[in-house]
Amino acid sequence: MKYMIYNKPFLLSDIFMITIAIDMMGGDAGLAVTAPACADFLNRYSDAHLLLVGQEDAIYQAFQAYNHLQERWTIIPATEIVAMDEAPQHALKHKKDSSMRVAINQVKEGTASAAVSAGNTGALMATAKFVLKTLNGIQRPAIAKFLPTKNNDTICALDLGANVDCPSEQLLQFAVMGSQLVKAMHPEKSNPRVALLNIGTEEIKGTDTIKMAYSLLSQSQLNFVGNMEGSEIFDNRADVMVCDGFVGNIALKTIEGTAHFMGNAIKNEFKNNLYSKFSAVLALPVLNKFKKQFDPRRYNGAIFLGLRGIVIKSHGGTDALGFGYAIEEAYREAQTNLLSKIEEAIAVELTSIEENTTKE
Amino acid sequence: MKYMIYNKPFLLSDIFMITIAIDMMGGDAGLAVTAPACADFLNRYSDAHLLLVGQEDAIYQAFQAYNHLQERWTIIPATEIVAMDEAPQHALKHKKDSSMRVAINQVKEGTASAAVSAGNTGALMATAKFVLKTLNGIQRPAIAKFLPTKNNDTICALDLGANVDCPSEQLLQFAVMGSQLVKAMHPEKSNPRVALLNIGTEEIKGTDTIKMAYSLLSQSQLNFVGNMEGSEIFDNRADVMVCDGFVGNIALKTIEGTAHFMGNAIKNEFKNNLYSKFSAVLALPVLNKFKKQFDPRRYNGAIFLGLRGIVIKSHGGTDALGFGYAIEEAYREAQTNLLSKIEEAIAVELTSIEENTTKE
Repeated sequence: MKYMIYNKPFLLSDIFMITIAIDMMGGDAGLAVTAPACADFLNRYSDAHLLLVGQEDAIYQAFQAYNHLQERWTIIPATEIVAMDEAPQHALKHKKDSSMRVAINQVKEGTASAAVSAGNTGALMATAKFVLKTLNGIQRPAIAKFLPTKNNDTICALDLGANVDCPSEQLLQFAVMGSQLVKAMHPEKSNPRVALLNIGTEEIKGTDTIKMAYSLLSQSQLNFVGNMEGSEIFDNRADVMVCDGFVGNIALKTIEGTAHFMGNAIKNEFKNNLYSKFSAVLALPVLNKFKKQFDPRRYNGAIFLGLRGIVIKSHGGTDALGFGYAIEEAYREAQTNLLSKIEEAIAVELTSIEENTTKE
Repeated sequence: MKYMIYNKPFLLSDIFMITIAIDMMGGDAGLAVTAPACADFLNRYSDAHLLLVGQEDAIYQAFQAYNHLQERWTIIPATEIVAMDEAPQHALKHKKDSSMRVAINQVKEGTASAAVSAGNTGALMATAKFVLKTLNGIQRPAIAKFLPTKNNDTICALDLGANVDCPSEQLLQFAVMGSQLVKAMHPEKSNPRVALLNIGTEEIKGTDTIKMAYSLLSQSQLNFVGNMEGSEIFDNRADVMVCDGFVGNIALKTIEGTAHFMGNAIKNEFKNNLYSKFSAVLALPVLNKFKKQFDPRRYNGAIFLGLRGIVIKSHGGTDALGFGYAIEEAYREAQTNLLSKIEEAIAVELTSIEENTTKE
């Protein structure tokens, strides 16, 4: 039996599908990157359905090559595009029919379980916050990301740039959200270790805000393992790293810069003379494997945490492979009950803080 | 003709010597690292004289092997040692005869042109500030360090941990100090490019403090090139990178952590199988050269800037090679007129700020 949705027929089995809304026009390259990434994703995940949001004709044309997948994609028209350098407030006020906004609307209306965009980060955050609102108990959303650590493990780092100034209670909220995200995405980690990014491991280190956050985290129900220095990010000492968005963004980009610089330096070293050119040929497969392990595209897909809906931000300059990883991140997250778990965990912390305050 | 100083004879030619006071007892390994580093340094620099500060008998014994250099080292007795985990205020109040304090006293009294210590950073900063005081126009000293960048160049980064909270005027002072340090140590850079570490390159990015610092730097006499992201540290876009001590410390340690993690990952990749073991043997000279280029010991020696005297902090866990680099840093800095240049440049900025305020 067939029903009609968005003028397309769908089967009842479709309701067991994971539907994700994609901002097709976002990112430095727009459709040139998003279209092949979506097609490749649909090829790999047969239980996925994509809502392709953006300029109808252009998307339709780009998808002619993927007619065999057409049962699992639906175009949702949106006439406007948010520019990569547009002021977030401008996009929010004047681009109500942008591909970004309409994609987020799908999450709000329940037609999609998650939205993915490679567009302007500030505009995406402002729009997502405005359209979806924050979860109960969460003051401001944060940007989270899983980074690789030793032993092939990962650490969930947040906030990576949504909030430049964060009072200590917000850092506690980030910790709760990060902890729940780790549990949802890595069920084997039943009690994630939470660390506070600081300039020393001792309790007395850092700014007043950081010291207060240390105290709040110590009293929380979380598995707080104390302060962590920048040098320990990759040491697998914690599953969640909490910091404000300014520090987190500096740390994340410093990692990217260092990795890039070192990668180039080793390449140049091998190019230096005949002997090393020769050894480079032999070392190439190893170096390539190494490069692949650190490929930033594999870790593409930053998560906007704390909203009443799942929104994933892809790097604006990524290629189809990287954008595909961001869609996958959304697909996997959409299968968890992360949002209700966050609300539950935040409620527990709020009750506990209230009780402590009453006692005092 | 011979004179007597510290009960040792000295030649008039000695007054053309660079004299540096060394805290012999500081660092994780104390004399085991400092003694061979000092001897090696004296072997390499024939116009250097070292004041070896610490427990007399122990130093005397450690230097028996270096009798041929004895015209150029003098033991300055100090009975106490500041522990690596001692609270700075405790060291300041109760360890007045510590090797650290007595070494700094030599700078204060003019018997040495600089002091070097691998001891407790907090205690060293507190003691140096108390004994030497800050330069005219400088509110608080900063920790600076030269980091390698592409094209075999360097960037002077500050503050790397002395001040966790910094109002915008202090960031301006750091910029002035960093700029003068670059000019003094690299005379070919006559107009150092100064950048502000931030989470985006646009003027509107960052905290209120950062935005105010941006405005102050724009109006200054410095060669301000705008904001710089963490990913650009190694891009040789600037000669000076300014940030508060919290962010700077996180960035510095994140660089160290990333470099260490990547270094290990590439080593493991080569160990993985027979083929790569084979290619590793051939790649070894190249990898070693690469490793040497990034050897943190080569960049050992953080500079305490803004004091009425030169104090260099060596990494506490370094070996003799690394400690030697820290002494060299002190030796080179002692030959500049950095401190008076900083005072002059700060005075220019203060006058200019005053004039701008009067105009408004």
